[in-house]
Amino acid sequence: MNNKVPDNTIIMGIDPGTNITGYGIIKINKNNIELIDLVEFKLSKKNDHSTKLSEIFNKTSELIKIYNPNYVAIESPFFGKNVQSMLKLGRAQGVSMAAALNHDIPITEYSPKKIKMAITGNGSSSKEQVSKMLKTMLNINNMPKNLDSTDALAAAVCHYYNFNNSSLKKEFSNWSSYINKNPDRIV
Amino acid sequence: MNNKVPDNTIIMGIDPGTNITGYGIIKINKNNIELIDLVEFKLSKKNDHSTKLSEIFNKTSELIKIYNPNYVAIESPFFGKNVQSMLKLGRAQGVSMAAALNHDIPITEYSPKKIKMAITGNGSSSKEQVSKMLKTMLNINNMPKNLDSTDALAAAVCHYYNFNNSSLKKEFSNWSSYINKNPDRIV
Repeated sequence: MNNKVPDNTIIMGIDPGTNITGYGIIKINKNNIELIDLVEFKLSKKNDHSTKLSEIFNKTSELIKIYNPNYVAIESPFFGKNVQSMLKLGRAQGVSMAAALNHDIPITEYSPKKIKMAITGNGSSSKEQVSKMLKTMLNINNMPKNLDSTDALAAAVCHYYNFNNSSLKKEFSNWSSYINKNPDRIV
Repeated sequence: MNNKVPDNTIIMGIDPGTNITGYGIIKINKNNIELIDLVEFKLSKKNDHSTKLSEIFNKTSELIKIYNPNYVAIESPFFGKNVQSMLKLGRAQGVSMAAALNHDIPITEYSPKKIKMAITGNGSSSKEQVSKMLKTMLNINNMPKNLDSTDALAAAVCHYYNFNNSSLKKEFSNWSSYINKNPDRIV
């Protein structure tokens, strides 16, 4: 399993939000997952929504330039919020995605259940259980208390585990229309 | 009025949507509005939402490179839709905004009512009335039947009329936090 992931593959997970946007960056080497960075980008409460979107776009672009990821993974939201919250979340996701698209990095979206399943083997795990499992898997000594960056990290690790499983993927990229039309070409 | 708009100022209005994304580009010269282009970018129904977002980002980036606008104007949505629609719309807006932010172009958001008021003098005008007024104002012979690009054009014209009226503006830019902290510096 996962033997098709090339060495030195970098995966960046993003958990976009207008209060905190989290990032988890991992490197895959000989089927071993190495934690590269966990970033919690706190948006100032003083700034308005528009300024925050600009900050998320700039921060995501900056981290992409620093870590040069091969893939970006993102958690798809559940639809429990009100329309105004969903618009704000959609915009935050949109600017994050665009930062990756701007660098031709394919984006894959996973449902919260798929991510939990990939990390703990149980799609109904709590966020705390996912965080604890990630801490053990990646030998992280000081796991951040805030779960925003661990959600992002979980999405990145989920992408690694599902790397060869095209049926789970919802991929965004400049080539995705090609892929859509050629599902047999996905390896 | 509007005497502070520099000559050759280019304003691009965008009406982001995952079925059609409309663009209206105008040039201001000696307080005269010249129509530069109206673009209706139809997204293929065959493609999934993710591919469409990528297409919107690429199309917006392409048009920004072609027309090199100084300002981008966007209509803020009304909140009548369901949460899933709002997420999709938010993402479409997010990728459009990011294309502008990526080129350091300030984005200003206007409510539908503000836009109608700017064009027709009546915040309750129909889309058809706005389109008809734009046709007359800008001497457009063949107004597109589809209203997506005229909505975008209306946002651009609204930005011109409100150029010096900071109280109406909700501006997005890399400098917007500076502006937020220095409201007296807006001219």
